[in-house]
Amino acid sequence: MKVGGTPYRTIWPTADGTAVEIIDQTRLPHAFRTTRLETVAETIHAIRVMQVRGAPLIGAAAAYGLWLALRADPTDANLAAAFDALRESRPTAVNLRWGLDRVRARVADLPELDRATAALIEANAIADDDVLTCRAIGEHGLKLFVEARRRSDRQAVQVLTHCNAGWLATVDHGTALSPVYAAHDAGIPVHVWVDETRPRNQGASLTAWELGQHGVPHTVIADNAGGHLMQRGHVDLCLTGTDRTTATGDVCNKIGTYLKALAAHDNGVPFYVGLPHSTIDWSIRDGLAEIPIEERSPSEVVRICGRTDAGEVIEVQVTPDGSAASNIAFDVTPARLVTGLITERGLCAANAEGLLTLYPERRTAAE
Amino acid sequence: MKVGGTPYRTIWPTADGTAVEIIDQTRLPHAFRTTRLETVAETIHAIRVMQVRGAPLIGAAAAYGLWLALRADPTDANLAAAFDALRESRPTAVNLRWGLDRVRARVADLPELDRATAALIEANAIADDDVLTCRAIGEHGLKLFVEARRRSDRQAVQVLTHCNAGWLATVDHGTALSPVYAAHDAGIPVHVWVDETRPRNQGASLTAWELGQHGVPHTVIADNAGGHLMQRGHVDLCLTGTDRTTATGDVCNKIGTYLKALAAHDNGVPFYVGLPHSTIDWSIRDGLAEIPIEERSPSEVVRICGRTDAGEVIEVQVTPDGSAASNIAFDVTPARLVTGLITERGLCAANAEGLLTLYPERRTAAE
Repeated sequence: MKVGGTPYRTIWPTADGTAVEIIDQTRLPHAFRTTRLETVAETIHAIRVMQVRGAPLIGAAAAYGLWLALRADPTDANLAAAFDALRESRPTAVNLRWGLDRVRARVADLPELDRATAALIEANAIADDDVLTCRAIGEHGLKLFVEARRRSDRQAVQVLTHCNAGWLATVDHGTALSPVYAAHDAGIPVHVWVDETRPRNQGASLTAWELGQHGVPHTVIADNAGGHLMQRGHVDLCLTGTDRTTATGDVCNKIGTYLKALAAHDNGVPFYVGLPHSTIDWSIRDGLAEIPIEERSPSEVVRICGRTDAGEVIEVQVTPDGSAASNIAFDVTPARLVTGLITERGLCAANAEGLLTLYPERRTAAE
Repeated sequence: MKVGGTPYRTIWPTADGTAVEIIDQTRLPHAFRTTRLETVAETIHAIRVMQVRGAPLIGAAAAYGLWLALRADPTDANLAAAFDALRESRPTAVNLRWGLDRVRARVADLPELDRATAALIEANAIADDDVLTCRAIGEHGLKLFVEARRRSDRQAVQVLTHCNAGWLATVDHGTALSPVYAAHDAGIPVHVWVDETRPRNQGASLTAWELGQHGVPHTVIADNAGGHLMQRGHVDLCLTGTDRTTATGDVCNKIGTYLKALAAHDNGVPFYVGLPHSTIDWSIRDGLAEIPIEERSPSEVVRICGRTDAGEVIEVQVTPDGSAASNIAFDVTPARLVTGLITERGLCAANAEGLLTLYPERRTAAE
């Protein structure tokens, strides 16, 4: 997608072949900066502090991280150490493990001399695949906008989204937002209600920014507001991403997604989740019981980052001294609340049979 | 309740009888300051900018405001003008109108010379009534904590609350939090999950502060987190306040309350609402269709107030320049999602019959 008219991915190898460059998402929306990652340690740091975030992008970043590790030291010992360290950088998104597995499988049997180059080629392939996958999600999701227009005489299709599942969460195009961009680019008027998404404000800081860059009309709302908007009929369609989807269609996504799914269900608003195949964890059937949920630092609740009137980006404390805070990063939306899933292969019901219809090659493995 | 060991109400006439003094709630939790209001214009400003807020406190503040108006000019014309101006200062809380009606009824037939004093006496009575009413809510709500302890072997009763319905929202004791204080004071271990309550953060800034002052264990969470906590069984009881309750038990409260009620319902967690009789609008039977919902400035979503590391309290911008924002202040929780109401007369079901059982004198009026 374009930033100030220039096309960007969220991650790419530098032209000199010595590093990975990323858009530093912790600086948005107040500054657009890119950062070089030269080592696996820098990559792990970037994932942990969420300079890169979003399940598909984390998968690509981890793949490039393994390349950087092998560039420095292509031994089996270093491959194993880097694999484990990257895998533990964040626990919930399954894409991270998937990206690492892909690179390790590609290089494990190669002589040490060839490993770094093969890892780079594989990481590039993961990134390219993600771009095509996300674009396909957009094309399949487009039909939801056509249907929504048929159901209503209102000027624009009203979408509500939570967190950031846009192009910043992927290598390009996005998951939940890819259909939004596809509809907008196809001339269907769209307006997006953007959940702020506390505590890290990925909606207010990332989704609003990227929609604005692309010219998509949008309005930032408090996370508390979505239920009211749905009660009043101001939402045609909820669209979110996911960090891990079970083989049965349970969806683990940014904390608060479950509350919006409840409100959509209570008000008859379609609730769709956009995802690439790499987000599906075929080994898990009960999202509530089996998906590890990341707990992050309470400081993300206690302190909020913003821009002062003088233009300085700082953190301010919003809670009283001495009050404890808790920061659980994800919740699980049971499949019963999800109207459907949008993948690169099409739309399906959020259940085992729906997913197996799209991915028949998993039938024997999963059943 | 006590602040640093000294007992305070949230509002009181000054000893010299020339003004009203309030705790300036826009300065909390970072500074505890009181402010003098000497005119009706200052009172309206204090209500609008939420130096005083919370339905019961707004009712008392409006009553004192009418006193200040009559102190300056006791004519019929000024009584009518002040009444209208105060009534329009905020639209949703019905207590505001109720407090104004009480004072006007008390003074309307009096000679001009006697009006100010009578208004002060009536405003004081409203404040005193609120204190007794809120204390009674606490005593009746206490039984929910005894029941919760019977249902679980966990150490403390786990309460989730939204916004601030504590003593800062009333003249003293609070509505939703009054039972929490009653339980804590009765030696029942309590822990409160405090919803941050964006956009104005009344949970993080007011509820956390007052619970901390009283020594009640609590944890601030993002508004997004409550659903997850209920799914995992970490909440025994939801307790909120209300700004207007219909004769049929629909509850209008701070935006986001509806989402928590949906999650409580989905997980079998009791959802109770604490309220004084003055919050009931007996003239309304359909909360969604009939309650006016305040829309406040988008700047409250765009900018967040907090304390810098240097100790300065400032606002920072969290959204990108050019992104629109919307700020709807309340939502309506349908009675079907409310387990029960706690009033100064006891507990009742959230429906017309439940309310009429507690307030039988309304039977002819409402039916």
